[in-house]
Amino acid sequence: MTSNPHKSQFQLSELIQGLDAILKGDPNCLITSVSTIQQAEPGQITFLMNPQYKKYLPETQASAVILTQEDSEDCPVNAIICRDPYYIYAKIAARFEQKITTTIGVHPSAVVGKDCEIDPTVSIAANAVIGDRVKLGPHVIIGPNCVIGDAVEIDEHASLDANVTLYFRVKVGKRVHISSGAVIGSDGFGFAKHKGSWQKVPQLGRVILEDDVDIGANTAIDRGAINDTVIEKGAKLDNLIQIGHNVRIGENTAIAGCVGIAGSSVIGKNCLIGGQAGVGGHLTIADNVMITGGTEVTKSIREPGIYSSGVGGLVTNKEWRKNSARLHRLEHLTNRVKELEIALEALTERIAT
Amino acid sequence: MTSNPHKSQFQLSELIQGLDAILKGDPNCLITSVSTIQQAEPGQITFLMNPQYKKYLPETQASAVILTQEDSEDCPVNAIICRDPYYIYAKIAARFEQKITTTIGVHPSAVVGKDCEIDPTVSIAANAVIGDRVKLGPHVIIGPNCVIGDAVEIDEHASLDANVTLYFRVKVGKRVHISSGAVIGSDGFGFAKHKGSWQKVPQLGRVILEDDVDIGANTAIDRGAINDTVIEKGAKLDNLIQIGHNVRIGENTAIAGCVGIAGSSVIGKNCLIGGQAGVGGHLTIADNVMITGGTEVTKSIREPGIYSSGVGGLVTNKEWRKNSARLHRLEHLTNRVKELEIALEALTERIAT
Amino acid sequence: MTSNPHKSQFQLSELIQGLDAILKGDPNCLITSVSTIQQAEPGQITFLMNPQYKKYLPETQASAVILTQEDSEDCPVNAIICRDPYYIYAKIAARFEQKITTTIGVHPSAVVGKDCEIDPTVSIAANAVIGDRVKLGPHVIIGPNCVIGDAVEIDEHASLDANVTLYFRVKVGKRVHISSGAVIGSDGFGFAKHKGSWQKVPQLGRVILEDDVDIGANTAIDRGAINDTVIEKGAKLDNLIQIGHNVRIGENTAIAGCVGIAGSSVIGKNCLIGGQAGVGGHLTIADNVMITGGTEVTKSIREPGIYSSGVGGLVTNKEWRKNSARLHRLEHLTNRVKELEIALEALTERIAT
Repeated sequence: MTSNPHKSQFQLSELIQGLDAILKGDPNCLITSVSTIQQAEPGQITFLMNPQYKKYLPETQASAVILTQEDSEDCPVNAIICRDPYYIYAKIAARFEQKITTTIGVHPSAVVGKDCEIDPTVSIAANAVIGDRVKLGPHVIIGPNCVIGDAVEIDEHASLDANVTLYFRVKVGKRVHISSGAVIGSDGFGFAKHKGSWQKVPQLGRVILEDDVDIGANTAIDRGAINDTVIEKGAKLDNLIQIGHNVRIGENTAIAGCVGIAGSSVIGKNCLIGGQAGVGGHLTIADNVMITGGTEVTKSIREPGIYSSGVGGLVTNKEWRKNSARLHRLEHLTNRVKELEIALEALTERIAT
Repeated sequence: MTSNPHKSQFQLSELIQGLDAILKGDPNCLITSVSTIQQAEPGQITFLMNPQYKKYLPETQASAVILTQEDSEDCPVNAIICRDPYYIYAKIAARFEQKITTTIGVHPSAVVGKDCEIDPTVSIAANAVIGDRVKLGPHVIIGPNCVIGDAVEIDEHASLDANVTLYFRVKVGKRVHISSGAVIGSDGFGFAKHKGSWQKVPQLGRVILEDDVDIGANTAIDRGAINDTVIEKGAKLDNLIQIGHNVRIGENTAIAGCVGIAGSSVIGKNCLIGGQAGVGGHLTIADNVMITGGTEVTKSIREPGIYSSGVGGLVTNKEWRKNSARLHRLEHLTNRVKELEIALEALTERIAT
Repeated sequence: MTSNPHKSQFQLSELIQGLDAILKGDPNCLITSVSTIQQAEPGQITFLMNPQYKKYLPETQASAVILTQEDSEDCPVNAIICRDPYYIYAKIAARFEQKITTTIGVHPSAVVGKDCEIDPTVSIAANAVIGDRVKLGPHVIIGPNCVIGDAVEIDEHASLDANVTLYFRVKVGKRVHISSGAVIGSDGFGFAKHKGSWQKVPQLGRVILEDDVDIGANTAIDRGAINDTVIEKGAKLDNLIQIGHNVRIGENTAIAGCVGIAGSSVIGKNCLIGGQAGVGGHLTIADNVMITGGTEVTKSIREPGIYSSGVGGLVTNKEWRKNSARLHRLEHLTNRVKELEIALEALTERIAT
């Protein structure tokens, strides 16, 4: 069950070249793969960031550990000392990544519409379907079985994994990455009730994914009703997220899996939204807001900070039933306190007289 | 970042032709697109429905506003007066919708099985795969890369966007619309535990989508275990919804994104279910019930009305921790009240004697 | 709306052959299909398991009922007596299942990469795309429009429905079944913040689905960051579930729809996780734990048992608002109790003196 993903090997000196890190140890030490601090074997490199893993440092079998100056005191092996070990790890691990090979050009089984502008460096994989008037910039990668609607524009170095669907007129920025099963630009949920049944309201806007956006697997982003739905530069969306029409997600905001953002809400920059959280419609969330997992956001948030909803953490189901019963007896308890107050006052008066 | 979706232009008199609306203003005024009341420019038409947007009316730059008689008093420009501005807007906006062009016939890259009955007006797009014994009625549209299982029946004017999957024997009514990534007719979650491991229970029913149903992106609807899973006429389902086996959704019920309905539950007609709500299995929900977003429905609902679950609205995380602590101290508080009652009674008796 | 799925017919004696069940009645009775106990007609077989359906037994029109010895006393028709009626029903219902016909071999429209090892008994359907160095064992079924990444290995008798995506190096065990729209092996949500923007952390692990795993429609399972994400033998996952990177799901654990498991959490064996529940990151759940629907698991669970979170069951929205108000007045109530205690003590002292 080991998962050594790559056969390449690098000397430690090669690995840290160009990075803001200092090596304490043997620059010629050969590294063949990455691992976790507790499972690493000789020849592997690992990192230490989360304090709860520090206990594994003295016994680690790794050949090198990426860590802070402070932690490096206790490092029994080669140390790569830096201010941000997780970021430096990301850079080093990228050397061991097995890149998927993509072939430049249009696979013969792909179907490409009329009047497209496709850069010669583009890769379009098997059975992809490209609509009319589509523009694909340099080094764009379209995975197998993707469907790209009419008049879509995808800027340079963006990549779509297999089975991604982009509806017509979606606009994708530079270096955007979209995971499989994602659906971008479907109609918003707009219906007007008329004589007892729902009439469809046309959804005329687009979806715009700005540069460096990342979209997870099976995430759905609806096109705007009138204006566009916009995911701003550098925002990262995990899997199975629902983004309603007209929503705007601010720069560098990160959203975890299973979150739902209802229509016309505006999320600020640098926010963090925990898994399964929900944001109601027509709300505004300020910049630098953190919303904990599972929270239901039912009103706008004007100030940075950490927000939550609900009460009652995880307990046994028996305790949970007790908690619920107590809550429902609160009315009764309040009445008992009121009666006590009246009785005590009466008694006090009686003694005074 | 404006999103003028269409180049066509219409006179106001053309736009309201056949609609239950009266024009106060210039019938020859040319309209080129739609916009929001606060962002509209000359040449654009907008509407006013939500009272919180009324403040924008006096300053709107739109050439025409769709609104009620009451609101029309304050309208500084051409007014289209009607009883239901959102519905009239839907009708007018449809004139500006950029229809996706579909080509009648079967794309050469599509694969069609044996013994199908395909109306000559059907459009089957590139790389779609159609099973055996499939029936497609007049004007049905099958998007690129859709997979239609054996013995599926799709009635007239239904349209499937790209990458939709219909399992075998699914039945689709007239004018049904299914968004990309939706999966209709997968096996229900039926397993019987036997000697410590799960044995699959065959799922023998179908999924039936009645006329005018709308299904959102990446929504999944399981086939019935014995009988069918049924989505009744005119029901509208948003994105990323999970419908378990044997469920029945009533006529004209609308369900927002990320909702889960567990197996064998029956939802009434004209219900509204808010985003991320969950309905347990084997429950019955009456007609005209509204369930607020995030609510967990754990028992049947027999009467129309608005229902919710949980307590504790959105607060700062600090306040949330306090609330949780208070809840857990309720037991203690109750004991203190009890002691007070005993002490007070004792004191009262002592004074009486 | 009846859904007789199959025209075949069997005698009761044939149906119970080899099963741990005893027939009380006519072994030659012909059965043509299955039904529910309340809707069954002559010629149909049904089962009784859930006590709330026992009221339908005396009037059932079924030709035979699968039930326990105890319930069989009241059975007015042929009885198939056994210890586990739901399991015996599963075995019998399988006889009436309409098997989807799959054709051995590679459909001419499918695209297969280089250096693959494909058993001659494999079925690869139309427009599927298979990468390089893929290994497909005996009797593997790949549905239409599936995309199988490079170096994927799929063991014997595994079957993928239409439109499934497996990323590179995913490993699929024997008899695994994956429903449409599922995405297995997408990158985990790993980003390191650096100078205000998110830098991607390479996701180097794989996804391993062990033998007899079942994956629902539109479920997403991320590949590991360093080690692998593992779904152990016999685990069953419903639709629209999100499994983060490095997660391990224990043997025979069953997870209902819309659940999210955040990264690096480890779920034990034989657990049951209810719909829309959420498990935070880096947590450990013991074996034999049941988590009720909608529960947010925010800490590790060390002991078997049933667990829940939150308080406040389903009520009318009016009552819900009252509950929330009471909760927020708890602080005030606590202060009143404190004042009462002080006043009573003062009074008691005064009387004593």
